Amino acid sequence: MSDVVAQLREALGDRVDTDPAALQVARADKSGHAAASAPLAVVRARTVDDVQQTMRIATRTGTPVVARGAGTGLAGGANAGAGEIALSLREMDRIVEVRPDDLIAVVEPGILNGDLDRALAEYGLWWAPDPASRDIATVGGNIATGAGGLLCAKYGVVRDAVLGVDLVLADGRLLRLGHRTVKGVTGLDLTSLVIGSEGTLGIVVGATLKLRRRVPGDVHTIAAVFPDVRAAAEASAAVTAAGIQPAIMELMDAACLAAVHALLGMQAPPAGTAQLTLQTDGPASADEAEAIAELLRRRGGEVAVSADPAEGERLLRIRRSMHPAMETLGTTLIEDVSVPRSALPAMFDEIARIERAYGIVIPTVAHAGDGNLHPNFVFDAEPDAAGIVAVPPAVWDAADELFRAALRLGGTLTGEHGVGVLKSRWLADELGDDQWELQRQITRVFDPAGILNPGKVFAR
Amino acid sequence: MSDVVAQLREALGDRVDTDPAALQVARADKSGHAAASAPLAVVRARTVDDVQQTMRIATRTGTPVVARGAGTGLAGGANAGAGEIALSLREMDRIVEVRPDDLIAVVEPGILNGDLDRALAEYGLWWAPDPASRDIATVGGNIATGAGGLLCAKYGVVRDAVLGVDLVLADGRLLRLGHRTVKGVTGLDLTSLVIGSEGTLGIVVGATLKLRRRVPGDVHTIAAVFPDVRAAAEASAAVTAAGIQPAIMELMDAACLAAVHALLGMQAPPAGTAQLTLQTDGPASADEAEAIAELLRRRGGEVAVSADPAEGERLLRIRRSMHPAMETLGTTLIEDVSVPRSALPAMFDEIARIERAYGIVIPTVAHAGDGNLHPNFVFDAEPDAAGIVAVPPAVWDAADELFRAALRLGGTLTGEHGVGVLKSRWLADELGDDQWELQRQITRVFDPAGILNPGKVFAR
Repeated sequence: MSDVVAQLREALGDRVDTDPAALQVARADKSGHAAASAPLAVVRARTVDDVQQTMRIATRTGTPVVARGAGTGLAGGANAGAGEIALSLREMDRIVEVRPDDLIAVVEPGILNGDLDRALAEYGLWWAPDPASRDIATVGGNIATGAGGLLCAKYGVVRDAVLGVDLVLADGRLLRLGHRTVKGVTGLDLTSLVIGSEGTLGIVVGATLKLRRRVPGDVHTIAAVFPDVRAAAEASAAVTAAGIQPAIMELMDAACLAAVHALLGMQAPPAGTAQLTLQTDGPASADEAEAIAELLRRRGGEVAVSADPAEGERLLRIRRSMHPAMETLGTTLIEDVSVPRSALPAMFDEIARIERAYGIVIPTVAHAGDGNLHPNFVFDAEPDAAGIVAVPPAVWDAADELFRAALRLGGTLTGEHGVGVLKSRWLADELGDDQWELQRQITRVFDPAGILNPGKVFAR
Repeated sequence: MSDVVAQLREALGDRVDTDPAALQVARADKSGHAAASAPLAVVRARTVDDVQQTMRIATRTGTPVVARGAGTGLAGGANAGAGEIALSLREMDRIVEVRPDDLIAVVEPGILNGDLDRALAEYGLWWAPDPASRDIATVGGNIATGAGGLLCAKYGVVRDAVLGVDLVLADGRLLRLGHRTVKGVTGLDLTSLVIGSEGTLGIVVGATLKLRRRVPGDVHTIAAVFPDVRAAAEASAAVTAAGIQPAIMELMDAACLAAVHALLGMQAPPAGTAQLTLQTDGPASADEAEAIAELLRRRGGEVAVSADPAEGERLLRIRRSMHPAMETLGTTLIEDVSVPRSALPAMFDEIARIERAYGIVIPTVAHAGDGNLHPNFVFDAEPDAAGIVAVPPAVWDAADELFRAALRLGGTLTGEHGVGVLKSRWLADELGDDQWELQRQITRVFDPAGILNPGKVFAR
């Protein structure tokens, strides 16, 4: 047993887990990528002091630390490998405070987004940031990746919903960043800097969240099928351009739609068919749904509108079944580019071009309301001895073309999944070398010895 | 003429202004504070290249640079003094691009917020960030201070409405931070870091703004008078706690209200009377106005509701006349603390206590919807030979008590005006020494020689 593990055990006792199965789990997230070998230990922190003690030992011994929530990331950002400590925040899952009068909650990072939102519902409050993984992903992971979700065009991303974070630095010191007020401009906005920093600046051990009231009134669900994906993409861009703001606007291309129909045992749609699924909410919900339906019909969509919650849930279920349906097709690399909304049709053209050029299928779903696409690169590959499936070089080449196309269209490499280990080699392409170097220097202010999540984000 | 000015002149010709009147203007903003003497020159940049050339000369000669917009700041953050270059962005005021389909605009920093919004109205678009100074303050100044305004509880602060900024570093390099997409998590969020950084990280030479559609439907205005300020504060907190979200909710205490009535030649309200002025908008505007009116009546308010735009404007005019009314009372130090909304009544108790303890009058207006208060410390003082009025030490002592009370109540030193030169001595009280030092080190990554707005924010 290494000296580091011995020191951790002395300080933290049974919070230090070296069970081989636990170490294997900590190597991977849901991206399909895993570290080449297992970490030294998984520390299951229960208190801020546990985190501080872990970081002091890490600093003293020069040991890298990988912060980890529920392990649902899609970029390998929380994967821990040889010689590293996996610091799990999952057991720090308390709701510390709920203030309906101030529309804030103070929580620990390990609570699941869905659990938090259900607890807030009792107060009529709503935790709006809603990654599709909300029921299995933590608030801390949401903050670490700057995650998005389905509702962002209308209700914002997680950065818009966090007022402050408590951060343990690499050397174990605790900083309280941000504030409890709607407004506050005292010094630099380090809260926003930490959101999306993927464990490179410190360990988030608490967060003060800006809540919304639950939206009153009926939700209307609109499903529209189009003969091809370009028509669906143009229609979605037209909804935004017309000035109507649905809460949700999801697009599924033909390959996605066919796979989901097969999975759910539904009759196959005509070849090439793409689908838009939208929801409107709030006091103008019915009027907005009618206006959207009319616009989609004029653009050749076959449209169904429903105010019935059960029917709405049934329609959205097709979208929600995307990831299980992809798993039936083979191994997938789930990508995450984002483009200005008007560029959605052009981005779908680029995806079709890359499919032809590489002879691969790239079923794609898009949060069309905000221009965020998830192309799924499907491939066949055998797991290695450790059970890990490597992405073939040709798939990375195709992904490289996808990233460059998104940048050309004014977009970005990653809308909501983060850079992690999978995209670090493209980071400087988007940021430019000067900004890349400046960002790396900022991480060094927080973490001079470079022990926080090394090999991620700023590795190249 | 100094060597620096000679170099500026050679590079920038008539964009270098050394007219004594221009230099005097650059010493001060609207805080009442001014630098002890005048800067070397005012550079009136017209292009990004002008800014880069200025910064290269500044770096080469070790000359401090103070970025400046319209000079409407309230914390002295843009005041330029001896040996410094005042770099005015006011003439860089173009709208570079408007994209209604993507809900974005790209602008230069010198455009006035009001001018931008009027130009966007033609497209049905809205630039929501609305400092009370919107018609005289620039978008760049709004970004530099992280400004707020009247609509923030419902429509957010400026940080929520900026997707990217173009930043010239101290050494003249240009960085493009952020993105054009709704979502984007590629690397650290330097855009948010720059917002509110008050000229300490670089010179903002362009911004990509996230726009809203103009809100359809009628606006309803509610005015309610209460026998004392505590009753009005409790009523405003009750509106928030009841889950109704007005677009505007402004509170004026008795001293404010009396001064405005006198200024406008209106009949004086009964002694002690405080007023709430609210507006509701959007599709539920009428219902929300009625619910708010009913709640305020139950709490003892004398309430008037109007859907007539002219009458609404008349009611809001009382609030908008605050600053001119204060000027009739004497010299004022306009403060800017922010507290959680539930703490508004307690904060008004603290202000009353400080008034008694120091024998001074502190007329206070509050953006009650978001807990941001502007106490006005009124005092008599003669201008010095340079025309500058110094805030008396006793007034600073009273302000010091105000800041500490706000922090005790879970609040912040400055909700929207910034730290500038006036609040830098309190900055570490809120941040703590560790965070203060970390923030200062981050500024050094952007500006290793410390030539960007020295003596502001992080001076102590």
